[in-house]
Amino acid sequence: MTETFDIIRIKENSKETVKDVVVEEVPLTIMVGEKELVTLLCTPSDLKDLATGFLFTSGIIKKGEDIKSIIIDQEHWIANIVLVNPDIEEKLVFKRLFTSGCGRGTLFYSAADIIHRKKIVSDFKVAPARLRSLMLNFQKSSYLFLKTGGAHSAALAGTEDILIFKEDIGRHNAIDKVIGCALVSVGFKDKILISSGRISSEILFKAQKTRIPLLISQSAPTNQAVKLARDMGLTLVGFARGSRMNVYSAEERII
Amino acid sequence: MTETFDIIRIKENSKETVKDVVVEEVPLTIMVGEKELVTLLCTPSDLKDLATGFLFTSGIIKKGEDIKSIIIDQEHWIANIVLVNPDIEEKLVFKRLFTSGCGRGTLFYSAADIIHRKKIVSDFKVAPARLRSLMLNFQKSSYLFLKTGGAHSAALAGTEDILIFKEDIGRHNAIDKVIGCALVSVGFKDKILISSGRISSEILFKAQKTRIPLLISQSAPTNQAVKLARDMGLTLVGFARGSRMNVYSAEERII
Repeated sequence: MTETFDIIRIKENSKETVKDVVVEEVPLTIMVGEKELVTLLCTPSDLKDLATGFLFTSGIIKKGEDIKSIIIDQEHWIANIVLVNPDIEEKLVFKRLFTSGCGRGTLFYSAADIIHRKKIVSDFKVAPARLRSLMLNFQKSSYLFLKTGGAHSAALAGTEDILIFKEDIGRHNAIDKVIGCALVSVGFKDKILISSGRISSEILFKAQKTRIPLLISQSAPTNQAVKLARDMGLTLVGFARGSRMNVYSAEERII
Repeated sequence: MTETFDIIRIKENSKETVKDVVVEEVPLTIMVGEKELVTLLCTPSDLKDLATGFLFTSGIIKKGEDIKSIIIDQEHWIANIVLVNPDIEEKLVFKRLFTSGCGRGTLFYSAADIIHRKKIVSDFKVAPARLRSLMLNFQKSSYLFLKTGGAHSAALAGTEDILIFKEDIGRHNAIDKVIGCALVSVGFKDKILISSGRISSEILFKAQKTRIPLLISQSAPTNQAVKLARDMGLTLVGFARGSRMNVYSAEERII
């Protein structure tokens, strides 16, 4: 459920390569009969429980006995489910077309997005002290979080200061608000994307679309986020708290 | 962006009614032309930015100029978007049917789920000291979080101890794992559902399916979660940290 990476850990006046343990993320596709229901990004443990719980809390099954069998394919990350009553499958199509809504994290990525991802080319550079100061401003700006304790924030910064700051109950939404605003105003060139939330592959794919050179978060990344950032050549900084930060990829931009 | 509720705040030896400021949650449906693309649960601010950013990070538009107009209907929470190139709509249908996958929080709730929600009838009761001790055990059990800082956890407890404990990168998944496991083993009667994560309406809908009497979290609820819990008669406890906790609904179960 974890993967270890060699990363750069920056503290007040030191910089060292250390081993860092990162949480694992896999895409589990839930198939009911022949139908693809959904893909959940998840930790690869207790996947039968996850599939059962998802079907139950989504209202697709009413009790455990409604499931005839679940087979988890750990090679392709597929939960193959057969229901006792196959009529339910018809209902799934209906639900998918008319009422499926997504709290957050909907993925419309096609295979081409992944295959055609190009390296981010940018000679943007920033000093750790500058990042620390930006993160301090970022945390101070979180009006909604300070008031309710229940909000995420995201921001776009230049090397000097924060240019756009947004809050939302969802970390994906906060980032989409910042990106949507930047798209029609200051753009993404030589900018830094800041998040209060954990960095999963979904967040990396959002960042990738902007070609931004640097993504920094107070929180942890997943192993897939680290791998994608390395593939893309995007500088990913995590656990940016106080004077400490972890650089997971493209560390040449942190001088 | 916030709503104030009268709640019960419990500390070491005190219990008082206080005003609590809770973050607001609305369901924003993104319509592209005549087509319903997705419903995002979000904070009602910067909704044009959110819609723009969502379309961009989902790969549906390539630049800000691809959008002809966005009108936000704040009564029905709809973002009505007209694209410059209406051909893109065809592509959306394709994407919806074949590649839409959902990181977390997929909703398959039908209108009937909401209309037919029944009050939870249960004479289950628990003392604050017992909840504190359960939460302490809960936090200590978070192996993956302690190791990586990037995981959520959820658990099912009786009044005596934790019976099921699961971890995942997603708070929705962690809860689904617990519910899936309980569904085919210990059931939900007189049980407590514990979460490390924020409590949005989606989490409430999951809990509602189980008819569990009590949901407790270390984190904040949204206003919709508080309202749903009050409607359902589910005891919702938030910010359960150290000796403190906030009781948002059905406080008669906390004795």
